[in-house]
Amino acid sequence: MTASFRSGTPLEGAGRPLPQLRWDAKGLIPAIAQERSTGEVLMLAWMNKEALAQTLQTGRACYWSRSRSELWFKGETSGERQWVHEIRVDCDGDALILIVDQDGQGACHTGHHSCFFRTIQQAQGESPDQDQSGDRGQDDGGIQS
Amino acid sequence: MTASFRSGTPLEGAGRPLPQLRWDAKGLIPAIAQERSTGEVLMLAWMNKEALAQTLQTGRACYWSRSRSELWFKGETSGERQWVHEIRVDCDGDALILIVDQDGQGACHTGHHSCFFRTIQQAQGESPDQDQSGDRGQDDGGIQS
Repeated sequence: MTASFRSGTPLEGAGRPLPQLRWDAKGLIPAIAQERSTGEVLMLAWMNKEALAQTLQTGRACYWSRSRSELWFKGETSGERQWVHEIRVDCDGDALILIVDQDGQGACHTGHHSCFFRTIQQAQGESPDQDQSGDRGQDDGGIQS
Repeated sequence: MTASFRSGTPLEGAGRPLPQLRWDAKGLIPAIAQERSTGEVLMLAWMNKEALAQTLQTGRACYWSRSRSELWFKGETSGERQWVHEIRVDCDGDALILIVDQDGQGACHTGHHSCFFRTIQQAQGESPDQDQSGDRGQDDGGIQS
């Protein structure tokens, strides 16, 4: 991948071996992005080893797009970047939290600050947002900032 | 399942059709439990349709244990129950947040309040916690309160 992103500050631990995480059968792990200043959960996306390594090296959230099968630097073209302050691992090593500073309007391609902008009552009877093909993989085509 | 749990308050939306969520190939959806009072992310677990229906009906977090292949009312025997205040759905309908009031010491079988008690730096070089067989499915055997 030829990265054109602005480099952030490498996280402590970059360059060291990746921790022994439990990757799923597809080599992925769910990653929750939580906003540092507010505690708001912004989104849930997926990482493979390379996405995690890129995130550690650049200090910017890099995910694996399941729909496009490629690395996806969050906000690469939209400007809605996520600067990663810390990464937390759960007790059994099969989920991550990224503590992030969110650039721009928010994390969601719909223009909402968080992707979790509906309650289940609001979602009942509705179709899920079909603009996306599965995992916000087309994020950068969404919000224009 | 013969439920011996103390009933909570059904959530608004219980009894109505489930929203059109994107369940994965195994019929599951990731569910983030976030503490209402603090905003702390406590854990990530998985739900199937029945777990979500049980949660809506009882007001208590019910997950699907991937390791035991059974419904799992969080804290059933340990007392570390989660009372669900609200459920949020993300933009593309493939992830949930449960806003919960956590009973007892916390969500994690290790005794920590949150399962995400390590940073990735702390996890580097460590093995993941092998006490669990995959998804906190043996939660109730953990914390003694």
